[in-house]
Amino acid sequence: MNILEERILKDGYILDDNIVKVDSFLNHQLDIKFLSQLTDIIKEHFKDKKINKILTIEASGIALASLLSEKFDYAPVVFAKKQKNKNLGTDVYESHVKSFTTDKEYRVTVSKKFLSEDDHILVVDDFLAEGNALKGLIDISNQSGATIEGIAVAVEKGFQEGGKIIRDAGYDLLSLAIIDSISGGEIKFK
Amino acid sequence: MNILEERILKDGYILDDNIVKVDSFLNHQLDIKFLSQLTDIIKEHFKDKKINKILTIEASGIALASLLSEKFDYAPVVFAKKQKNKNLGTDVYESHVKSFTTDKEYRVTVSKKFLSEDDHILVVDDFLAEGNALKGLIDISNQSGATIEGIAVAVEKGFQEGGKIIRDAGYDLLSLAIIDSISGGEIKFK
Repeated sequence: MNILEERILKDGYILDDNIVKVDSFLNHQLDIKFLSQLTDIIKEHFKDKKINKILTIEASGIALASLLSEKFDYAPVVFAKKQKNKNLGTDVYESHVKSFTTDKEYRVTVSKKFLSEDDHILVVDDFLAEGNALKGLIDISNQSGATIEGIAVAVEKGFQEGGKIIRDAGYDLLSLAIIDSISGGEIKFK
Repeated sequence: MNILEERILKDGYILDDNIVKVDSFLNHQLDIKFLSQLTDIIKEHFKDKKINKILTIEASGIALASLLSEKFDYAPVVFAKKQKNKNLGTDVYESHVKSFTTDKEYRVTVSKKFLSEDDHILVVDDFLAEGNALKGLIDISNQSGATIEGIAVAVEKGFQEGGKIIRDAGYDLLSLAIIDSISGGEIKFK
């Protein structure tokens, strides 16, 4: 059992049989020392990749991405924005993401200034369930012509489809903890 | 002229006579090494304060807050969430913030689990204009009974009211760059 799995068992809690809340250290209150330790594991996994940019999506991915930057020679972080504005102009890459929580679709954008075919990207996010946010980030990366060197998430819900879809598409996906099942008040990891 | 003022002149650009964009290093693409240098200045200013928690608001404040945590013995970061959900329950502190950009009001919340009267808070954000986001964070802090030891922002637009309101209310507000005017394509600092 790794440090994230231990921490989930210690501080996570089950909201219903589908949702594990880790808001005391990962996505509302942030334990920065712990998140920095997680980025050490991510760095180790991708240490042979030439990564010059970290791509994430607001809001919960930003802390992990910022700490990862320190481990990859301060590669710039770019975070995709969830857009409410209608007129975005032509200077952004745009994708559509369906929210698992609210079941609504929203737009995410990245300015064309900050991603290009010269970029070798590590994509990072806190959670992977259906994979919709990651699919949006992959779509945006592809529009820019950048190379995705890898994808790292803290928690993957292994009983949903996202991880399988992304691995089947050939991406090097590192999930620090893969939840296999949540039932009877018990969390089991893969 | 400090490093942030220099960087704004180098990489910022004026969108109209009111808006300075610093999205290449502060709030869309993030130059983490540079932001970490900014947090050194913030740490120096508040070094005599006993700070055990960093409070910010999603999304752009999270990177600065995370890097600040490293300078304050890994004090936990809590970020207020912009809420779309209607049913929040009674386990959150809630405030209302008027967006300067969209002119709409939105709700921000912090779980009651993560702020209490035992906390000594440093509030941080990337931008201060009318001060609405900071007023929301102050409101939430006050609801929790926590002590606000100080407030730090990267860029203050000195020609708007926020800075004056917050200083007049007695808070120790550190703005790393105060823009005094934007006119004729030129940015002047206070």
